[in-house]
Amino acid sequence: MAWQNDSIMARKGLAKGERGKEYTITETEQGKYHYVYGPYVKPVLTVDPGAVVSAETHDAFEGAIKHETDSPSKILNFPFLNPQNGPIHVNGAEKGDVLAVYIESIVPRGPQPCGTTVVMPDFGGLVSTGQTALLNPALPERVKKLVIDAKTGTKWNDKITLPYEPFIGTIGTSPEIEAISSLVPDYYGGNMDLPDVGVGAVIYLPVNTKGALLYLGDCHAAQGDGELCGVAIEHPTVTTVQIDLIKGWTIAWPRLETKEFIMTIGSARPMEDAARIAYRELCRWMAADYGFDEIDAYMLLTQAGRMRVGNMVDPKYTLGASIKKSFLV
Amino acid sequence: MAWQNDSIMARKGLAKGERGKEYTITETEQGKYHYVYGPYVKPVLTVDPGAVVSAETHDAFEGAIKHETDSPSKILNFPFLNPQNGPIHVNGAEKGDVLAVYIESIVPRGPQPCGTTVVMPDFGGLVSTGQTALLNPALPERVKKLVIDAKTGTKWNDKITLPYEPFIGTIGTSPEIEAISSLVPDYYGGNMDLPDVGVGAVIYLPVNTKGALLYLGDCHAAQGDGELCGVAIEHPTVTTVQIDLIKGWTIAWPRLETKEFIMTIGSARPMEDAARIAYRELCRWMAADYGFDEIDAYMLLTQAGRMRVGNMVDPKYTLGASIKKSFLV
Amino acid sequence: MAWQNDSIMARKGLAKGERGKEYTITETEQGKYHYVYGPYVKPVLTVDPGAVVSAETHDAFEGAIKHETDSPSKILNFPFLNPQNGPIHVNGAEKGDVLAVYIESIVPRGPQPCGTTVVMPDFGGLVSTGQTALLNPALPERVKKLVIDAKTGTKWNDKITLPYEPFIGTIGTSPEIEAISSLVPDYYGGNMDLPDVGVGAVIYLPVNTKGALLYLGDCHAAQGDGELCGVAIEHPTVTTVQIDLIKGWTIAWPRLETKEFIMTIGSARPMEDAARIAYRELCRWMAADYGFDEIDAYMLLTQAGRMRVGNMVDPKYTLGASIKKSFLV
Amino acid sequence: MAWQNDSIMARKGLAKGERGKEYTITETEQGKYHYVYGPYVKPVLTVDPGAVVSAETHDAFEGAIKHETDSPSKILNFPFLNPQNGPIHVNGAEKGDVLAVYIESIVPRGPQPCGTTVVMPDFGGLVSTGQTALLNPALPERVKKLVIDAKTGTKWNDKITLPYEPFIGTIGTSPEIEAISSLVPDYYGGNMDLPDVGVGAVIYLPVNTKGALLYLGDCHAAQGDGELCGVAIEHPTVTTVQIDLIKGWTIAWPRLETKEFIMTIGSARPMEDAARIAYRELCRWMAADYGFDEIDAYMLLTQAGRMRVGNMVDPKYTLGASIKKSFLV
Repeated sequence: MAWQNDSIMARKGLAKGERGKEYTITETEQGKYHYVYGPYVKPVLTVDPGAVVSAETHDAFEGAIKHETDSPSKILNFPFLNPQNGPIHVNGAEKGDVLAVYIESIVPRGPQPCGTTVVMPDFGGLVSTGQTALLNPALPERVKKLVIDAKTGTKWNDKITLPYEPFIGTIGTSPEIEAISSLVPDYYGGNMDLPDVGVGAVIYLPVNTKGALLYLGDCHAAQGDGELCGVAIEHPTVTTVQIDLIKGWTIAWPRLETKEFIMTIGSARPMEDAARIAYRELCRWMAADYGFDEIDAYMLLTQAGRMRVGNMVDPKYTLGASIKKSFLV
Repeated sequence: MAWQNDSIMARKGLAKGERGKEYTITETEQGKYHYVYGPYVKPVLTVDPGAVVSAETHDAFEGAIKHETDSPSKILNFPFLNPQNGPIHVNGAEKGDVLAVYIESIVPRGPQPCGTTVVMPDFGGLVSTGQTALLNPALPERVKKLVIDAKTGTKWNDKITLPYEPFIGTIGTSPEIEAISSLVPDYYGGNMDLPDVGVGAVIYLPVNTKGALLYLGDCHAAQGDGELCGVAIEHPTVTTVQIDLIKGWTIAWPRLETKEFIMTIGSARPMEDAARIAYRELCRWMAADYGFDEIDAYMLLTQAGRMRVGNMVDPKYTLGASIKKSFLV
Repeated sequence: MAWQNDSIMARKGLAKGERGKEYTITETEQGKYHYVYGPYVKPVLTVDPGAVVSAETHDAFEGAIKHETDSPSKILNFPFLNPQNGPIHVNGAEKGDVLAVYIESIVPRGPQPCGTTVVMPDFGGLVSTGQTALLNPALPERVKKLVIDAKTGTKWNDKITLPYEPFIGTIGTSPEIEAISSLVPDYYGGNMDLPDVGVGAVIYLPVNTKGALLYLGDCHAAQGDGELCGVAIEHPTVTTVQIDLIKGWTIAWPRLETKEFIMTIGSARPMEDAARIAYRELCRWMAADYGFDEIDAYMLLTQAGRMRVGNMVDPKYTLGASIKKSFLV
Repeated sequence: MAWQNDSIMARKGLAKGERGKEYTITETEQGKYHYVYGPYVKPVLTVDPGAVVSAETHDAFEGAIKHETDSPSKILNFPFLNPQNGPIHVNGAEKGDVLAVYIESIVPRGPQPCGTTVVMPDFGGLVSTGQTALLNPALPERVKKLVIDAKTGTKWNDKITLPYEPFIGTIGTSPEIEAISSLVPDYYGGNMDLPDVGVGAVIYLPVNTKGALLYLGDCHAAQGDGELCGVAIEHPTVTTVQIDLIKGWTIAWPRLETKEFIMTIGSARPMEDAARIAYRELCRWMAADYGFDEIDAYMLLTQAGRMRVGNMVDPKYTLGASIKKSFLV
């Protein structure tokens, strides 16, 4: 941690952004993985702020798609998709606080080819779906199994190798009384599929219930903006995060910090509503913490804001609005 | 029941659409009302198909808004809104079945003025909201308390009286593993706010989990298309429904039947996706059960389909697509 | 004209809603039909307020689809679609005025079968299109030719006859400096495909340029809400309208009046934006002309507003929001 | 031109990407600027492929906003906004061809402060507008006048200086028969407000009518993703472009090429439709010209596609989808 010493996590967190006790959540320790973000299950782990947790994540298909000849539509059993580790109960966390999660490392695990991407019916950004419900015939299914090397990247074919740029596809806290499918992104995080949630970033998540109940899973070895066909390079990993707790900071939607920028994250449909949420939160953040008046922030973002399209395929679309820290002077 | 003797409920239901045993769910029997549609609570009642249940419903604010001088934004405690009766466990119901619910009567209850409608910040069809997130200042709050008479209607002001056209704003089955806010409409029903779900209609709901777990509440004394400001004439009632179970009929979204028409109901954002869902389901229904090929159905609905806008204010918008039975020959 | 004597047209129009001089626009008189709404062509007719004009309209395909074996995608020559009669220059009309158009009669013309509807690639409410641009394969094309009888209706097949409920699919004034495809609906009218624009109604159109330049065409013998596959029962007609001019009444979007209700019409994407436009205009109208304060109007429409989905297939979707005159007391 | 020697423009253009004859369009030579993209005016210039044209562009307000105390809503005269240079008739261009435009340089002109940005009522990404039509009160107007230095950038305030990253906000060819407001982006280009249309890029535009009729204007000194408040740093410039013509290459939407990537550009509402258009066009391009099958392209873009949000404020939103050339092997 270098810039992190000056991060919001370091400045406001109860553990001051320091690494505390280390934990693992192996497959065995996790036992049953979860398919909803909710408060109705027992925590797999209870930790203090500062805890560093290494979790063995499954891929989004829980490893069920093993061969390029497999048929996803026959194998997959909705709604038992996108298995999540957790929940992790963080001592002292209460509704109205913020959980800060620094993403320390993501390492592929399991036998090769450990990467999977598929085209399947009724899902994806350029096909008729259950929501954009049309009468056109479906595309044929297709599966690609991929060898992932954390150093050299993912071999797509003989000519193309994609760099290994891993991130956490799904991470968030529990809603207060709802239990929402891990396929959904919303105000508490969830299936945002936003590549900025990668190694070296800190994500800030609203706490909605006692103990925060952090879930995570669904790591991607690489992903383009929008996760176009709906399935990135899914892979099982060991993912290590450092968890801190910020009392007295209430946020409406997830926020993110890197060395270079701060970002707000919105998830909604239509896509412009996700963009509006993200940018409005950023205006409000700049006004609350960086000395701008709200309309000044609005005008400056017009000239210097950046927008990242996380996913355009999930039940809600996710966009991140950011501004460089160098403008927050 | 007259036309109902030839309804799908009568023809396919285990109880053949006959009234069975009668039950009540008084406020006392209900005890704690529910704010999510989910499988994580005990049923308040377990019944056989044919059961007739009279439930004392609360209004969407659980009676908390009593005077026109009240401030909704101060009184209401999100997410504890839109209290629901239930769940009712229906014996024999399993994932893949359909619950048929005939709406027998809706009667206002409680001290007058028992009707409430409000304009409140960040909610409504013509204002900035948490999803269509803008920087404009909010409208002022406003509360109207209204005397409702089941015969003469609701007195709006000295000049205008609105006819009493009650319906169930929120009704549905439990998702399989999710527990979703009762403010949300989706494939299992929920907060559809569709005036066609009124006295004399049969609604067909997909069963997603054992026992179906029927919830209902949020009755409206009247409502325009779209529920424009987000709050219809909310009122507490005694609502009586007759429940039947159809085995071996799997539907993806709620359907509805009256003497005159059949309807399919879709909930999504943007609004066109709700319309697409509703119309695609209707094409498929006409193809599966009424002898049309799917493209014929598509072409006939182009000339004879009807579209009702239920709500344009909830987390998903709800639209119903219908066709007269006289065209289903 | 009975109720019309008390219509806004009668009360505010320069001709007081009286029938004036009669004109025809036969196919020959029209000569070249138009495919854009714009100010860059010569008027086919110049009239005073009160004029009654009978126009020989073409169907939306200009008669090019003659047989059920025809291939629309081969025959049709985009953008030369949806031919319009006009423009009609109305003396005295200036930017900021309103053109009132009473629809007196619509009569089918031409050899039978004079009705046409089709399913064609990349167009329609339940298929991938040029805007909702997906990779799914297209549906097969299909053409239906239909015999239309103004008294008995349109014979759909041996079992189904659709009542003759004709209306003007496309009608509007010229934009000030734009020339927009006659396939588009917008603030000046155009291809709204709203069944309320039928015989006996008065439509009010904003005047954007000198002479107003009224265009019309694209009459439908019947249409369901949304014009689902994109093509209603298209037919050539003799359509007769009475034109009046209202000075000093500036409106932002088309409005409509019948014996029973007043309606405002919005066209936009996504569909909720069309609904918002329509309802906001209705709030404003009720506030300006009927003694409501804007929030009162908003609250009353929540209980008593009606929403009609005109089209969900054109470049912009069209919705009409209405309220019964009996509530405007 | 270095990489440009291997650009599509160089390989396919009639002038082989070579600089030809040089022209100017000074304010005087332009005379009347244009507010629509259409075929109904005389070209200001007729050139052969290869022509290099330096145009004196106005800012989007035609210089009318001179002081920070000015009121945009009083000064601006809709629809006479966003003045355009042109049209330029390119000899030999016919419907179905492509115009290639290399952006050679953009230089600020005029007295300082030559930059302008404003917040004005009913326009912008985080406010109620004419399309997202709400009842909330408007934000106050605000004007910022800015000194722009092509070397050091734009001084925002005492602490913040924005780098000079100029691009052409509005550029395109004429539609075939329509004349569309220069505020609108669409298939022919227009008001895309996409920062990638900057110095050093080549934009490819579909030719819809004889001579192509190229318009351009509305240069921005800097802009964030989405052009959030609707008004970037607008400034008058001398903009120099090199024009080439590609016969026998038909494209449906604008495309763009830089040293690093190729991009497709879609404009639509809701925003996901713009994203779908852009990505579908990119799939098709990769299939047509780079040896991918369409589903392979779809899957690779899922992992490696990039999405740029141009504007989220104009009548249609504009997004660009891109892929690095290094993946097109």
